[in-house]
Amino acid sequence: MSGLGNGRRVIGMRCRECGTEYPVQATHVCEMCFGPLDVVYDYDAIRKRISHRSIAAGPPSMWRYRDLLPLEDEVPVVTLGEGFTPLIHAERLGAELGLRNLYLKNDSMNPTNSFKDRVVSVAVSWARAHGFETIGCASTGNLANAVAAYSARAGLEAFVFIPSDLEPGKVVSTSVFEPNLIAVRGNYDQVNRLCSQLVETYPWAFCNINVRPFYAEGSKTLDFETAEQLGWRLPDEIVIPIASGCQFVKHRRAVGEMVDLGLVEAGSRLPALTGAQALGCAPVYNAWKEGTETVLPVKPNTIAKSIAIGSPSDGSYVIRIARETGGVVEAVTEEEIIDSIRLLARTEGIFTETAGGVTIGVLAKLARAGRWKGDEVVVAYVTGHGLKTADAVAAAPSPGRRFEIEPTLKSFKESVNI
Amino acid sequence: MSGLGNGRRVIGMRCRECGTEYPVQATHVCEMCFGPLDVVYDYDAIRKRISHRSIAAGPPSMWRYRDLLPLEDEVPVVTLGEGFTPLIHAERLGAELGLRNLYLKNDSMNPTNSFKDRVVSVAVSWARAHGFETIGCASTGNLANAVAAYSARAGLEAFVFIPSDLEPGKVVSTSVFEPNLIAVRGNYDQVNRLCSQLVETYPWAFCNINVRPFYAEGSKTLDFETAEQLGWRLPDEIVIPIASGCQFVKHRRAVGEMVDLGLVEAGSRLPALTGAQALGCAPVYNAWKEGTETVLPVKPNTIAKSIAIGSPSDGSYVIRIARETGGVVEAVTEEEIIDSIRLLARTEGIFTETAGGVTIGVLAKLARAGRWKGDEVVVAYVTGHGLKTADAVAAAPSPGRRFEIEPTLKSFKESVNI
Repeated sequence: MSGLGNGRRVIGMRCRECGTEYPVQATHVCEMCFGPLDVVYDYDAIRKRISHRSIAAGPPSMWRYRDLLPLEDEVPVVTLGEGFTPLIHAERLGAELGLRNLYLKNDSMNPTNSFKDRVVSVAVSWARAHGFETIGCASTGNLANAVAAYSARAGLEAFVFIPSDLEPGKVVSTSVFEPNLIAVRGNYDQVNRLCSQLVETYPWAFCNINVRPFYAEGSKTLDFETAEQLGWRLPDEIVIPIASGCQFVKHRRAVGEMVDLGLVEAGSRLPALTGAQALGCAPVYNAWKEGTETVLPVKPNTIAKSIAIGSPSDGSYVIRIARETGGVVEAVTEEEIIDSIRLLARTEGIFTETAGGVTIGVLAKLARAGRWKGDEVVVAYVTGHGLKTADAVAAAPSPGRRFEIEPTLKSFKESVNI
Repeated sequence: MSGLGNGRRVIGMRCRECGTEYPVQATHVCEMCFGPLDVVYDYDAIRKRISHRSIAAGPPSMWRYRDLLPLEDEVPVVTLGEGFTPLIHAERLGAELGLRNLYLKNDSMNPTNSFKDRVVSVAVSWARAHGFETIGCASTGNLANAVAAYSARAGLEAFVFIPSDLEPGKVVSTSVFEPNLIAVRGNYDQVNRLCSQLVETYPWAFCNINVRPFYAEGSKTLDFETAEQLGWRLPDEIVIPIASGCQFVKHRRAVGEMVDLGLVEAGSRLPALTGAQALGCAPVYNAWKEGTETVLPVKPNTIAKSIAIGSPSDGSYVIRIARETGGVVEAVTEEEIIDSIRLLARTEGIFTETAGGVTIGVLAKLARAGRWKGDEVVVAYVTGHGLKTADAVAAAPSPGRRFEIEPTLKSFKESVNI
């Protein structure tokens, strides 16, 4: 195997289906079988250099795990301090759900307030290092935010494609970075299809298309951080929102890498990886329920727009991995999404977007159905910020008490009555 | 001096004006002269235990500087992972402003997306440890967010007082945590006055009133982090937004503590501390311009609501400290605020609220007026997130290109013309 990675950390790419190998390049599909391509690392070389100590000596960002990311040491990265987000021991939410060791990975505390900063930091860094001058993406919103911000930071041009009905909060927090913003009259799957055509025509790095194998690797840092923050232990189960399924696949890779490289105790049991969808866009859940790996496309209709992908490219891998690790795929209603956003806010002081409501909704549903005994270490990935989808909770008034008064003690006492 | 702090890190409180000493208690005003009270530490004891190594061994949050915060070791803190936010080397913004060593402290990457999480984490922790069951605050928005979130996290009741015309983004991201939300028909100064009366009647911990001396100490962590992130060096100048002036005073204290405790090189020159205000609410700037320490109240009229305090309690201290350290106080127009939000977003990929526009606006104004030669290490504190005041930039359309198209290659090519 050859390519840019000669004698380096990254030694090439390999088809996940048929195993055909390729040199490092901006492509994501196998020419032989159309299977997805993954980055291939020289794990023997990595094993010699990586350790808890080498990681702790790195920056307080996801780049402390650079040895397991597809950027060679000499490549300057485009960073805004993404990752190394807090892992919160959720005692109050845990008490409501009967879980004594519940943890929340709060990925809304990223530079553009979602998980997407991890993958985009890798993708934009990789693209710039490989001569690309324009970054593109098809997005349900969070990716648009991140691509616009990181392109601005890098001084690169950006073309961001979004469904034209996207939430206002996500549009303004994208357009402020002054990308070329293309609002497409269609759903995400149509936007994505258009971008798959554009990538053939323009010499652009589309984060989640031709640069996807590198981009996707950034997802692994969520698991590395979780394990490090648990004292280099793997949790028993992780609840993960499912959109394309891309990050789910990489979480499986990440936990495997930690075992293989000795970053966690030899023989550690892999965490059960559990997927969360909104019933309004649940193609993976539908297939799981049917007991098949064949994921049939659906037309999304949910407030959880950031994960509303009706035709998830990695859907069948999600099902295989959930089964392999002892996880499940579960889904929740629109009402459960909103209730769960409120539940999380009320108990733990974290305001998540609708996708986070899906994750917490599935967590709560499984807990109430008796999935856990109570001492299991369960982690939920809270992947985006509530301000991005504020309308979801603004529409339904909060049950908290709200009073409007004059600026006097008398008015306060009369109105509030305490 | 006695009190709760016997033989401990905190040994009491002292009036900033007349020096009268008090035991540790929930009060903020001197009974003798009405001067503000500050926490008094046992620096000899702290000097023996604090070091770069002890700090680095702490958590990746502001609590790594706990030795210089008013919470004894055995007190459990209420934390959401606040602080230790990125310090970004702003090469592209620096190039526009002729500054090669410009850094941005991005405090919008806090749990509720503003600097206030630092002070509230300290205040709520202190209040809970001292038996309070209800947390209160008068707020221009960011403090409301933080108090509601941290009270939820701690399981304490919250009473949050806001001006009734607050931005919708700040209202929804407060009410989701289900505090008692009191919208007061008046400006911040009226809200604050009402709360000063309430604190006499109810046994509540008002973060920025009776608990203020402890609360305010949290501000220091911004400076500790900045110095640590610069390799334990003090910058040449720091640009800081001015509301009440409370954090400005604590920044002076923090840089002094670092010199006195040997955390930075002995004899290090203190950074020039420079204050930023909106011309629409510029009482401190007005006094500075007049060459007086007498700060006259104004009626706020600015989009930078989070710093729109017309009667700033610590205003005259700001003027003294700016003069002592070689800083200045400067102010910008509403148009400059919006332009600066866009400038920061376009060059560095950071989306800040209107208060951040004030800070960057003042930075840019001073740079363009020739304040710096180019090699100085200048740090700007970006204290809150753009999504909280999204209307400010949503109203004025972004100069970036926006297109609406059908989901076809043909429509893209016809519309975008590249």
